[in-house]
Amino acid sequence: MTKKILILPGDGIGPEIVAEAVKLLDCLRADFGLEIETETALVGGAAYDDCGSPLPESTLDLAKAADAVLLGAVGGPKWEPLEIALRPEKGLLGLRAGLGLFANLRPAILYPQLAEASTLKPEVVSGLDIMIVRELTGGIYFGQPRGVETLASGERRGINTLVYTESEIERICRVAFEAAMRRGKRLCSVDKANVLECTELWREVAIRVGRDYPEVELSHMYVDNAAMQLVRAPKQFDVMVTTNMFGDILSDAAAMLTGSIGMLPSASLNADNQGMYEPIHGSAPDIAGKGVANPLATLLSVAMMLRYSLAAPEHAERIEQAVSKVLDRGLRTGDIASPGTETVGTAAMGDAVLEAIRAAAA
Amino acid sequence: MTKKILILPGDGIGPEIVAEAVKLLDCLRADFGLEIETETALVGGAAYDDCGSPLPESTLDLAKAADAVLLGAVGGPKWEPLEIALRPEKGLLGLRAGLGLFANLRPAILYPQLAEASTLKPEVVSGLDIMIVRELTGGIYFGQPRGVETLASGERRGINTLVYTESEIERICRVAFEAAMRRGKRLCSVDKANVLECTELWREVAIRVGRDYPEVELSHMYVDNAAMQLVRAPKQFDVMVTTNMFGDILSDAAAMLTGSIGMLPSASLNADNQGMYEPIHGSAPDIAGKGVANPLATLLSVAMMLRYSLAAPEHAERIEQAVSKVLDRGLRTGDIASPGTETVGTAAMGDAVLEAIRAAAA
Ligand SMILES: [Mg+2]
Ligand SMILES: [Mg+2]
Repeated sequence: MTKKILILPGDGIGPEIVAEAVKLLDCLRADFGLEIETETALVGGAAYDDCGSPLPESTLDLAKAADAVLLGAVGGPKWEPLEIALRPEKGLLGLRAGLGLFANLRPAILYPQLAEASTLKPEVVSGLDIMIVRELTGGIYFGQPRGVETLASGERRGINTLVYTESEIERICRVAFEAAMRRGKRLCSVDKANVLECTELWREVAIRVGRDYPEVELSHMYVDNAAMQLVRAPKQFDVMVTTNMFGDILSDAAAMLTGSIGMLPSASLNADNQGMYEPIHGSAPDIAGKGVANPLATLLSVAMMLRYSLAAPEHAERIEQAVSKVLDRGLRTGDIASPGTETVGTAAMGDAVLEAIRAAAA
Repeated sequence: MTKKILILPGDGIGPEIVAEAVKLLDCLRADFGLEIETETALVGGAAYDDCGSPLPESTLDLAKAADAVLLGAVGGPKWEPLEIALRPEKGLLGLRAGLGLFANLRPAILYPQLAEASTLKPEVVSGLDIMIVRELTGGIYFGQPRGVETLASGERRGINTLVYTESEIERICRVAFEAAMRRGKRLCSVDKANVLECTELWREVAIRVGRDYPEVELSHMYVDNAAMQLVRAPKQFDVMVTTNMFGDILSDAAAMLTGSIGMLPSASLNADNQGMYEPIHGSAPDIAGKGVANPLATLLSVAMMLRYSLAAPEHAERIEQAVSKVLDRGLRTGDIASPGTETVGTAAMGDAVLEAIRAAAA
């Protein structure tokens, strides 16, 4: 059955990098029989400029009707003076909420060809391939009560609430176990169960869900130790699953281990495997329109889309292998350039990936 | 005026490493005019074995009467079967609570001589010298309400509460600004003010306290970015101040950047600069009694004690410089040994530090 993909170029370098993803999808459709149809819509600052809202209803409707959404990036200095409700980032949050995207998948992958980009020693990180599954719609970022109250003494007190129900924990753990089944079958659940009762419940539910996945080796780690282990020996991990806030912190730390943020994709999924896919880097307004942005994180986001929402892992592998080939050839965009490599622009990098895909099939 | 120091050797390697600290204090008293008197007491498993409590009242009373407490380490497999209230770790928590130690100072220092021990590239971490100031008695680890409740639907829900009053934030920020004044005069306050109202209040109070320290350059960073920056460019930081939980995570990550946990001291202070000083490594029961444990973190804890509780920074510097000299000589305990260095035991390392102190004064 033909799958629907909604393309949201967004702002800054978004349109340039997404253009390469569109070329890639066209190639997979034309030459490799991928059954998809695509539509394009506005989000973020581009949508605000067009109709006064960072997430027009029509865009949200299209997103809901799609099997997957590919997003470039949103935001830029142009829209920073706007009130918060109108800012480009609200478009992103609105899509997450509107689609119920509770599972954020954040791979931290370091292609051996780029190992020198890391601040860590090559032997510690070369070939790193972790998947961090972060709960995205619950936990302390959303919990009630919250706010700042004034006590009888006149002193103020700030409050936020970490809260998870069993069902919220269960569904994110299930996503993580499914991810582990497609990978190395090892899952590390990160909590602070020795101190926080809420994450004691998290651990209990993780163990319970784990009974449905006897092939997956489940372990548990306290968040402070996980932060240490990511620095000490990151390759020990396969899939990690954790709360919204712990995932926010650990996924960013893990991304930085690779030293090449321009290479990292992400996925946000709901219970139906409907998903939004986007590079983790931002809209980079300083280089927008110059044709120098790195499109690889966006192309790798397409690979994640194929694997997680479109049930087409063979196409995902095509892309991932092609990216590795292109790096082998020594092609680099400016952000990942190093001595002895050839610096190319956005379109040339996209073309090289297509070429590698076609060559592998020839 | 003569200062009182309570010595708590504790469990595992605690007695061995603390013995070196006692030799050091004796030397500073006898040869360098440091006016101190010391007393020794039991805590942790050793106290439980003696009298059935990990924190005898007599020990807590002595701690309260002291200007500073030096702790080795507590815990070990022998006491793990005990109920939580009787476990050695409770001795530590009881001391923190009993003395009101709300400020945890966690340096992450990487002596250039040990730069190879890090998983990070030497140029990224050699000479690292960060101080993380963690709030220790408030925040989400202590907030009410907390626990697991059963909803009307029968589903369970876990809750913990992040809560800080202005005065709690103010006193920890004050400690951090004071620490910055003794160091590089740069303070980075870490929060998640864009999402958590409680830490929005944190930021506001940090700015207010900062008006009393016009010489200190105050900056702010979100916790996820701080976790990234510690990996990307840790030497950008001087002092960091943050909440209990963020500090738990970041101080452990920062410690691991050094790759030599056996070198790192810590301090926990109250409003009167009364403090408890201890190495961050544990009681290491596997090597206890063998005379091979690294005493340097404990000796550096004494240096922190001299600086923060005993107002004797000149003696602190003596110790720190002596440690550096001993490393220059190529002496190493097993945990920090590397090719081309000489492996020595606990007592020989302690002696070498004393010798270097005396040599520097000769
Ligand atoms: Mg983040
Ligand atoms: Mg910790």
